Amino acid sequence: MSQFGPVVAFGEIMLRLAPPGYERFLQTPRFEATFGGGEANVAVALAALGQPSSFVTVLPENPLADACISELRSFGVDTSGIIRAPGRMGIYFVEQGAAQRPSKVVYDRANSCIALAKSGDIDWSAALRKASFLHITGITPAISESAAALALEGVRAAKEAGIFVSCDLSLRKNLWKWGKAPVDVMPEIVKHVDFLIGGGEDLEVMLGMLPGAAREITTRTLEMFPNLRAVLMTMRETRSASHTLWAACVNNRDEFLVSRKYEITHIVDRVGSGDSFSAGWIWAWLHMSRYDEGLEFATALSCLKHSVPGDFCRVTLAEVNALLAGGGSGRVER
Amino acid sequence: MSQFGPVVAFGEIMLRLAPPGYERFLQTPRFEATFGGGEANVAVALAALGQPSSFVTVLPENPLADACISELRSFGVDTSGIIRAPGRMGIYFVEQGAAQRPSKVVYDRANSCIALAKSGDIDWSAALRKASFLHITGITPAISESAAALALEGVRAAKEAGIFVSCDLSLRKNLWKWGKAPVDVMPEIVKHVDFLIGGGEDLEVMLGMLPGAAREITTRTLEMFPNLRAVLMTMRETRSASHTLWAACVNNRDEFLVSRKYEITHIVDRVGSGDSFSAGWIWAWLHMSRYDEGLEFATALSCLKHSVPGDFCRVTLAEVNALLAGGGSGRVER
Amino acid sequence: MSQFGPVVAFGEIMLRLAPPGYERFLQTPRFEATFGGGEANVAVALAALGQPSSFVTVLPENPLADACISELRSFGVDTSGIIRAPGRMGIYFVEQGAAQRPSKVVYDRANSCIALAKSGDIDWSAALRKASFLHITGITPAISESAAALALEGVRAAKEAGIFVSCDLSLRKNLWKWGKAPVDVMPEIVKHVDFLIGGGEDLEVMLGMLPGAAREITTRTLEMFPNLRAVLMTMRETRSASHTLWAACVNNRDEFLVSRKYEITHIVDRVGSGDSFSAGWIWAWLHMSRYDEGLEFATALSCLKHSVPGDFCRVTLAEVNALLAGGGSGRVER
Amino acid sequence: MSQFGPVVAFGEIMLRLAPPGYERFLQTPRFEATFGGGEANVAVALAALGQPSSFVTVLPENPLADACISELRSFGVDTSGIIRAPGRMGIYFVEQGAAQRPSKVVYDRANSCIALAKSGDIDWSAALRKASFLHITGITPAISESAAALALEGVRAAKEAGIFVSCDLSLRKNLWKWGKAPVDVMPEIVKHVDFLIGGGEDLEVMLGMLPGAAREITTRTLEMFPNLRAVLMTMRETRSASHTLWAACVNNRDEFLVSRKYEITHIVDRVGSGDSFSAGWIWAWLHMSRYDEGLEFATALSCLKHSVPGDFCRVTLAEVNALLAGGGSGRVER
Amino acid sequence: MSQFGPVVAFGEIMLRLAPPGYERFLQTPRFEATFGGGEANVAVALAALGQPSSFVTVLPENPLADACISELRSFGVDTSGIIRAPGRMGIYFVEQGAAQRPSKVVYDRANSCIALAKSGDIDWSAALRKASFLHITGITPAISESAAALALEGVRAAKEAGIFVSCDLSLRKNLWKWGKAPVDVMPEIVKHVDFLIGGGEDLEVMLGMLPGAAREITTRTLEMFPNLRAVLMTMRETRSASHTLWAACVNNRDEFLVSRKYEITHIVDRVGSGDSFSAGWIWAWLHMSRYDEGLEFATALSCLKHSVPGDFCRVTLAEVNALLAGGGSGRVER
Amino acid sequence: MSQFGPVVAFGEIMLRLAPPGYERFLQTPRFEATFGGGEANVAVALAALGQPSSFVTVLPENPLADACISELRSFGVDTSGIIRAPGRMGIYFVEQGAAQRPSKVVYDRANSCIALAKSGDIDWSAALRKASFLHITGITPAISESAAALALEGVRAAKEAGIFVSCDLSLRKNLWKWGKAPVDVMPEIVKHVDFLIGGGEDLEVMLGMLPGAAREITTRTLEMFPNLRAVLMTMRETRSASHTLWAACVNNRDEFLVSRKYEITHIVDRVGSGDSFSAGWIWAWLHMSRYDEGLEFATALSCLKHSVPGDFCRVTLAEVNALLAGGGSGRVER
Repeated sequence: MSQFGPVVAFGEIMLRLAPPGYERFLQTPRFEATFGGGEANVAVALAALGQPSSFVTVLPENPLADACISELRSFGVDTSGIIRAPGRMGIYFVEQGAAQRPSKVVYDRANSCIALAKSGDIDWSAALRKASFLHITGITPAISESAAALALEGVRAAKEAGIFVSCDLSLRKNLWKWGKAPVDVMPEIVKHVDFLIGGGEDLEVMLGMLPGAAREITTRTLEMFPNLRAVLMTMRETRSASHTLWAACVNNRDEFLVSRKYEITHIVDRVGSGDSFSAGWIWAWLHMSRYDEGLEFATALSCLKHSVPGDFCRVTLAEVNALLAGGGSGRVER
Repeated sequence: MSQFGPVVAFGEIMLRLAPPGYERFLQTPRFEATFGGGEANVAVALAALGQPSSFVTVLPENPLADACISELRSFGVDTSGIIRAPGRMGIYFVEQGAAQRPSKVVYDRANSCIALAKSGDIDWSAALRKASFLHITGITPAISESAAALALEGVRAAKEAGIFVSCDLSLRKNLWKWGKAPVDVMPEIVKHVDFLIGGGEDLEVMLGMLPGAAREITTRTLEMFPNLRAVLMTMRETRSASHTLWAACVNNRDEFLVSRKYEITHIVDRVGSGDSFSAGWIWAWLHMSRYDEGLEFATALSCLKHSVPGDFCRVTLAEVNALLAGGGSGRVER
Repeated sequence: MSQFGPVVAFGEIMLRLAPPGYERFLQTPRFEATFGGGEANVAVALAALGQPSSFVTVLPENPLADACISELRSFGVDTSGIIRAPGRMGIYFVEQGAAQRPSKVVYDRANSCIALAKSGDIDWSAALRKASFLHITGITPAISESAAALALEGVRAAKEAGIFVSCDLSLRKNLWKWGKAPVDVMPEIVKHVDFLIGGGEDLEVMLGMLPGAAREITTRTLEMFPNLRAVLMTMRETRSASHTLWAACVNNRDEFLVSRKYEITHIVDRVGSGDSFSAGWIWAWLHMSRYDEGLEFATALSCLKHSVPGDFCRVTLAEVNALLAGGGSGRVER
Repeated sequence: MSQFGPVVAFGEIMLRLAPPGYERFLQTPRFEATFGGGEANVAVALAALGQPSSFVTVLPENPLADACISELRSFGVDTSGIIRAPGRMGIYFVEQGAAQRPSKVVYDRANSCIALAKSGDIDWSAALRKASFLHITGITPAISESAAALALEGVRAAKEAGIFVSCDLSLRKNLWKWGKAPVDVMPEIVKHVDFLIGGGEDLEVMLGMLPGAAREITTRTLEMFPNLRAVLMTMRETRSASHTLWAACVNNRDEFLVSRKYEITHIVDRVGSGDSFSAGWIWAWLHMSRYDEGLEFATALSCLKHSVPGDFCRVTLAEVNALLAGGGSGRVER
Repeated sequence: MSQFGPVVAFGEIMLRLAPPGYERFLQTPRFEATFGGGEANVAVALAALGQPSSFVTVLPENPLADACISELRSFGVDTSGIIRAPGRMGIYFVEQGAAQRPSKVVYDRANSCIALAKSGDIDWSAALRKASFLHITGITPAISESAAALALEGVRAAKEAGIFVSCDLSLRKNLWKWGKAPVDVMPEIVKHVDFLIGGGEDLEVMLGMLPGAAREITTRTLEMFPNLRAVLMTMRETRSASHTLWAACVNNRDEFLVSRKYEITHIVDRVGSGDSFSAGWIWAWLHMSRYDEGLEFATALSCLKHSVPGDFCRVTLAEVNALLAGGGSGRVER
Repeated sequence: MSQFGPVVAFGEIMLRLAPPGYERFLQTPRFEATFGGGEANVAVALAALGQPSSFVTVLPENPLADACISELRSFGVDTSGIIRAPGRMGIYFVEQGAAQRPSKVVYDRANSCIALAKSGDIDWSAALRKASFLHITGITPAISESAAALALEGVRAAKEAGIFVSCDLSLRKNLWKWGKAPVDVMPEIVKHVDFLIGGGEDLEVMLGMLPGAAREITTRTLEMFPNLRAVLMTMRETRSASHTLWAACVNNRDEFLVSRKYEITHIVDRVGSGDSFSAGWIWAWLHMSRYDEGLEFATALSCLKHSVPGDFCRVTLAEVNALLAGGGSGRVER
């Protein structure tokens, strides 16, 4: 369908282990076992929309990593750029919250292959061949010094190749343990980015911006990074673990646009909703012509993600378009 | 309990395959496997209320159809009128929606036994012996020309035998593929009906009525079909796949009555809710004396259906009465 | 962590059998099989908070009762005071309600070991050794005359030993079948109680109080039972089986305090929420210094219980404190 | 299909709770929840073969008993003779053994409705109307004095009505607690029986026969009870919980016949295999003309039962005939 | 890994619905839902061994078919040759046998897309581009006249392109309903085949060979079809549904070789074992140099398939080699 | 029951993740999630037999480790000696084999807390207070240099305290990666051991013994380590992943005894069977007086373990005694 080359996402993918339903960890001796991770979620969401995508990471040689690659492949994500190397696959445990009880994530991702990977391990010219876009997040630079170097290497290679670059800041304070603070690392990366996605706290902590309202802080960010085409921000007003308001905005220097606001009263799984917003924006940038259309597309896609279990956004183009065209009222599709 | 003969429902019953929870189709390799279909749902709902009922259909000779008959029998539905013949059992796949994502139905019902059945295959005098009521829907006439003929044959036989007839129009545009439009078929059937159930769009598309508000369009329908005792309409205001307002109205020429409106904030499964309304109305017609009581009964029963997984309305008379008597507030029954 | 001796709870623990999800009884041939019971729930909730607790009951010698003891032990509850004796373990079946359909409990608890146990079967001096608190409910006196005698024996022993006593009235009208009415039994027990927990109907039916608003009826109860330090009352406004408002109040003669009110829009399991309130109050009495703090603590803990499947309140101290500190908005904890 | 009146089975049906797979009790918090009981198993096995059957018992008024009746009805068993009365439904827990670990049954059946039922509670003339056969076991007389009286009442009524009577002795030593030994009760019942089914130990303990080889002890039993047409005995040589040899014999005074011996190397569930032998014999008596054919039929049916999970013998006539015709070799049926 | 072009398999893939464990159809309301079909199984088995493969078929446009394609893609099977067209996806139901009870297959595959596909619907030159092998079975010609024509078209195109062709006869008597007998259709196809796989009955019924021992009948087949390089035959001696002996032989005119014989005492799933033999032979032909080695490889792979649930042979090259090197004794691999 | 102080086991416990049934890794997106590890398995098996036991290890501070401790506590294992420290909990993945396909274990245990723990982290005098026995395995010394030092520290402390020490060599070649070979580490540890458990390969590779038959190699081991009271060896003859012969022998210098040999034809889970042998021997040493009795007890217990899913040996004393007394034939226990 797409006349654009594949969107390449680079980062970590983990085994995701979750108790059934709303149970607490190991309340019954069982985990739902899927995969997820910010950048992989973007690659999958795009593939589900019909946009060719590729995921680049480093994984160990074992049957669990084989299964992870199979899962990506099942969505049509190109996995030929995945390197196998020593180390382990990261794991994260997630407990689904409800009402006043928040969802809880426990990471077991230290010493993963991607954290151990070094500059030079990835052949960026091969990985980015024919690519239209490179997407990274601020999580990869958090996990190790060498991973931060790899991310920087990637965005530089992308810009040299004339490829669009998007970066979702995704602050994870607890992960930054390798010696440097985000603010010492991320600005250098962001210099090579076209589309920056992040909330106010991300911009403050990771780029050193002063606090401010959405319009103001994104404007200042655009001033500091003249390379940026736009800054996007998702705006979540959480009512409880089950109920949220969801909207987004974009500042492209010319306009500051705010999307339609969705009231999501029955969240099925909100993990990965930000990633589906990134994917929606990338899709829109490649396939649509206007900022406002793109913002609405990305917001609608990520709204729908809240209704899908797991990290991955299993939503089709037709489903997003139906929501944009006035759906969402819950009539059964027969 | 009942002093009335069995209510006979005639139509198709299908294998219903649904992913677990809120998963998308085959997100995990498993289906919840039950049965359902508009008319069978009515027979089951009535049996669960304690009203003898019978289901007439055509099914193949295989263990899946045997299991379907067992399931009906478990509710106490009389299955002695089910014919076994060549063909297959229809299947439908349903994915439970949530929040802005609608539920989705995929039909695989072509070439079912009932679609292949011909006039004469059913011995109506046996099927309707001692019956108090015959219930059909507009789905059976949609699936094939011969099924439409069978439905017409059934309602004629019922009227000749002095049996009440109800018909739920249940427009399924995508099913009408055999050559005629609904409006060329349904009016002839509706001439033999006592109680017609259908929304505005059903009345327009299937009977050729001009658009109008509920009172108006039902009034005009009653004018066109003097045989009708009443037209009933469920009134759903969907907020999302998880949240709906639910009410109903009846026009019996003398009165236009609107029921209490229920706000259903946590839908478990809305498939079959219209069928439970039909069942509730039939029950009320046989066991109650007033239109307003009957309308409230049918609306309460179908409100409760939204909380039960599967097509079948597993709700008892005591439970409907408790809701009518002021329940629904969620106090645990111990 | 705790410098206080164990809290001892005395009563019945049952096998709890529940259909999966929102299914009706035996809609599929499977039960989720856990354990629960008012007093055991208190012991578990306290252990989960880090407060040593002990559960005293009578159970049969069979592998099911062994599994029940293992389950209690897994939480760290001291089970050394559990007596093994002839009889059976009670069972209760619970169907999770949704929207307008209430949850439903079916008891099969007649002739349980605890109902058959007689005065003298429990060595109270051993059971209460080093204890800081004894908790009972009005359910145990309901199940048999001898169980009522045991409960009285227990609270007397506790007061003689200078141990705090709490009693949750927990009216279960259908259980009182052994010959006496609650009002003939409970007042004698309540004379030995420090903290009485119960709603208006409990106070009327079980203690013979005249009806009245919360403040008024608790004040009159304190007048009639000068031994009481305080009367606590949870205040539930049910919207449906899925949605409730939740708050509580305490009357300690000096003050009548009402807690913050929580709107719980997505109830996962409300069974045991009252018990977690009792547990929260006991925890607060031992570890906090003010009535208002304690009331808020107990209310927050029991609010969170609504989000946890099963009878047991698997909530940590940190989680309660997070809610008290302004959490509950549903942000994912990473 | 059958020109014979229904076979009536009288006894207890229980809720059967089993852990998944080969797990020990409550190793995971879940039970497979079905129903079973010696006599009900016979009624179900016959219905599955196409022979009308009826099950007579006493059950409480609650949703669990409703589900039990639904389950029987799903097989086509006539449940109109089931009485609803005070008491509870018995429960049994069963853990599936494997290799050297035997299966384990824990009963929780005291105070069941059937144990509390008294002489006169069952209207035998209605229950046996048009019946061709009455089947009982030695389990019902074990559970209470009044149940023993009911069983005797039943067989007497059957013989007066000229109906065949079969009795499976089914010794359950641990159940005989009401005061009399089996040998004081069963001979009086057996005086009204046509076909007696039981192993050597059953004949010794329940009828007071001296030990002996199968031919010898059955011959002596036939001498003591001249009313008996035949004595049948299943012959199990257990190798392990997973592996057994299975055969049977019949002594009809004229002949002592031994069936083909089956080696069952992968037992799925052996509970109910003896009951399916009884059912097979009854079927054969009504539908076949020779003792050797009947013995082979009953043995083949009960051999196949070992491959079906649960108490109930879900095996069709065609499947038994295929095994008798040389099947059993495991070729896939397509 | 492979220097050979992809192996192309052409045929039908179906949704496979199976009850859990050893349950009978719909004993519980659930199906394990996977996919399978003779030719697809070959493509998957080869991909799992590391040999590029491609599957060519016709599927409808719906989310179930999408899921089927995803599943194939997850193994790395190239699905770019799958055509989407009107019709439905075939379904088959399979019940796992045990001991004397055979596995049972119920087909619901009439009117599938592939049965409706016509000559010309598949672009064989594209489908076979760079291919090293084409694999078909005798099932596709059974389902419809046009499917038979498509299969013939395919093998002709393959031979013209100089590609190896294998055909597994796979007699399914019940499927041949479109007018011609197998013997009127298959010989014409077999004229274009290099490697023919089939048992004695297949050769007799489908090619008209006279009965004979394996060596004899394969020799006569080779005489009749001089184009054949070899005839292969799997040799199953079934003991029960759980226990089989498994071996194979090959006749390449020069030699008649018989493989090692495996005793498989605990069959997990034997469906697809013949397909994995075909896959093993194709793999061996491309990657090994001797007939005896190839025969042992194919036999070992298909032996291992018996231990894997589902149609698909999820077995790696290393696992086959380990068995060939003396494994199979059950030592845990750590 | 026991008059002996607790048996202390020291080592690693891991989260154990296994696919359902006989599925391959992630064939469905689910893991059965339990816990296991050689030494923990011994502590649990002893607790299940009624012998007080304690498990000493190092675990992180997170909810998964909390659940692990709860699980140990549920068996009654004393967990007060478990240290919480930085690091992670090891994980192992296990796929259940069948027939010719072996079970497969994938370790993800690097950087676990116990591997990172250092000499001095465990207060051995507290851990061994009142202990009767210390059990270790050769796995702990394999995982890191500091863990090896801790193990040595432990056995020295035990011998100084006059406590019996047992060591199961448990060779895991793939784990020894920290620099030294087993033979450079284990002999020093074995100098403090009373009962050494290990197969021929263990003795060769870990202690440097020359190859030999069981009697010979154990005799030479006893000569080299005069401190040993006995060497025990389990003797498994594997037929397949589903079928094994199982026996054991002991050499106490005076006698060389060989146990009864069990044929286990339907293995449910063999992981942990060696550990249950160790547990059985420890139990016997404390509670029985003769070597032959002890050997038979340990062999019977470990035979039964093969029938229990998971690492843990959930077998009671009564069950072992029943097998020793002639059970194992598979008669249902009612």
